[in-house]
Amino acid sequence: MIEMKISKDTKIKKYMDGKCTEETDLVVAEYELKLSLNGRDFVKFTCSPDEMEELAIGYLLAESIIDSIDDIRLTGFKSIDSEKGQVEIETVESREYLFTDEARIVRTVTTACGKNRTFHLPLLKKNGWRTRYMKINYEEIQMVIKDFNARSENFKNTGGVHSSGLSVMKEILVFSEDISRHNAVDKIIGKAAINNISFDNKVLLVSGRISSEIVQKAAAVDIGCIVSRSAPTLKAIELGEKYKIVIIGFARGNRMNIYTGQ
Amino acid sequence: MIEMKISKDTKIKKYMDGKCTEETDLVVAEYELKLSLNGRDFVKFTCSPDEMEELAIGYLLAESIIDSIDDIRLTGFKSIDSEKGQVEIETVESREYLFTDEARIVRTVTTACGKNRTFHLPLLKKNGWRTRYMKINYEEIQMVIKDFNARSENFKNTGGVHSSGLSVMKEILVFSEDISRHNAVDKIIGKAAINNISFDNKVLLVSGRISSEIVQKAAAVDIGCIVSRSAPTLKAIELGEKYKIVIIGFARGNRMNIYTGQ
Repeated sequence: MIEMKISKDTKIKKYMDGKCTEETDLVVAEYELKLSLNGRDFVKFTCSPDEMEELAIGYLLAESIIDSIDDIRLTGFKSIDSEKGQVEIETVESREYLFTDEARIVRTVTTACGKNRTFHLPLLKKNGWRTRYMKINYEEIQMVIKDFNARSENFKNTGGVHSSGLSVMKEILVFSEDISRHNAVDKIIGKAAINNISFDNKVLLVSGRISSEIVQKAAAVDIGCIVSRSAPTLKAIELGEKYKIVIIGFARGNRMNIYTGQ
Repeated sequence: MIEMKISKDTKIKKYMDGKCTEETDLVVAEYELKLSLNGRDFVKFTCSPDEMEELAIGYLLAESIIDSIDDIRLTGFKSIDSEKGQVEIETVESREYLFTDEARIVRTVTTACGKNRTFHLPLLKKNGWRTRYMKINYEEIQMVIKDFNARSENFKNTGGVHSSGLSVMKEILVFSEDISRHNAVDKIIGKAAINNISFDNKVLLVSGRISSEIVQKAAAVDIGCIVSRSAPTLKAIELGEKYKIVIIGFARGNRMNIYTGQ
């Protein structure tokens, strides 16, 4: 069973009171793990790369797919590449019912709840990808994130809601809230589209972690910059570099961390 | 288009320095929304009940299923019941390819990433549900959550990882971390099962929000109490009452909120 680091030292730029410094900081890894059940693809996890057999077995128990560890005959881990791995589990009974069309449809629908229900069939885009990073004014980012954080009232009141916004320079044009980070982003993308607000040169503001799905959503509509009060993942940073999206994390008070861009 | 409250005043018990008081506090709602695309079930969201058409349209844009709002011919919202609603969207082109078996399989697998990839086919349990609430010692919960929060080192270092633990009285027996709240819980359930630790009279410790899926996972393995430093959702509280699971939120320092139980 391979064990990888769940976070990794990464070179980043730190901005504080108008000054930028290069520093090394821990950034959390995002790993793709496939669970193969009785020889067939079952689910894919986006996870931290440790305890992956525990994850797979715990998932089967927690989803009532098995009743106890004794329902498992064999388990093994296979590293497909550094970015992907596979846990293979064989159950005592074949569990064929999990692979019927009906079950698939149930899963297709219900697994898509809330967060991480992205299904990027290789992202085809008529008008291609961004070719250069958007120009960022850090002072304006500071002002807008201060405003954004202040507006996240429901989060403050209930501790349960994520916020998302779309801003141009110092101004927040669209603002939404949802229990799901992903829904909050989808809502502001929907609101902007309905109100004919273009995504060109806009900044996506999020209260939650910047994961790879958030970057993919931004890339899909050509948003050039994502700012969060919390952390990005390593894969989000990779995608930011690939799609030329500026990624700024830990934007709080007079400081922020810049992970991609000039 | 109906608009519901995304959070609701709820009667809860607040514990502080050994004393319990009844108070009213805002708790965030969790709403089930189905997106029907061209007359067929497409995805189901767990969301906050507002801006639901914006959510559906934004999702289709962010997932590159449509390229612009002009690809949509019709949209409408239908409330199925207070707990469920449906957004119906018709696209100009039929988008048949989204409903092929291959696409379904891709989605079944890839939508199941990370979080919210639960697919509770009506939860069948050999040994039925809990019939009474577990007895809780609040002083011990305070001690164990203090220990638990202190151990969440990666979260402190990177701001990107959730922690989960399983404890009995003051002792943490199993501890795991993951970028996903759900994975962290699956990991400790898997670890406990592999090490033959029963879930009876154990307390599930989580760093993230207590949503309905977390309660379902706990119910599936007969965990009697869930404690978090952050907030539960209304649906999590309902399920806690249904499955007789004690739900404690905002467990920080010398205080905690008790949402279900005696």
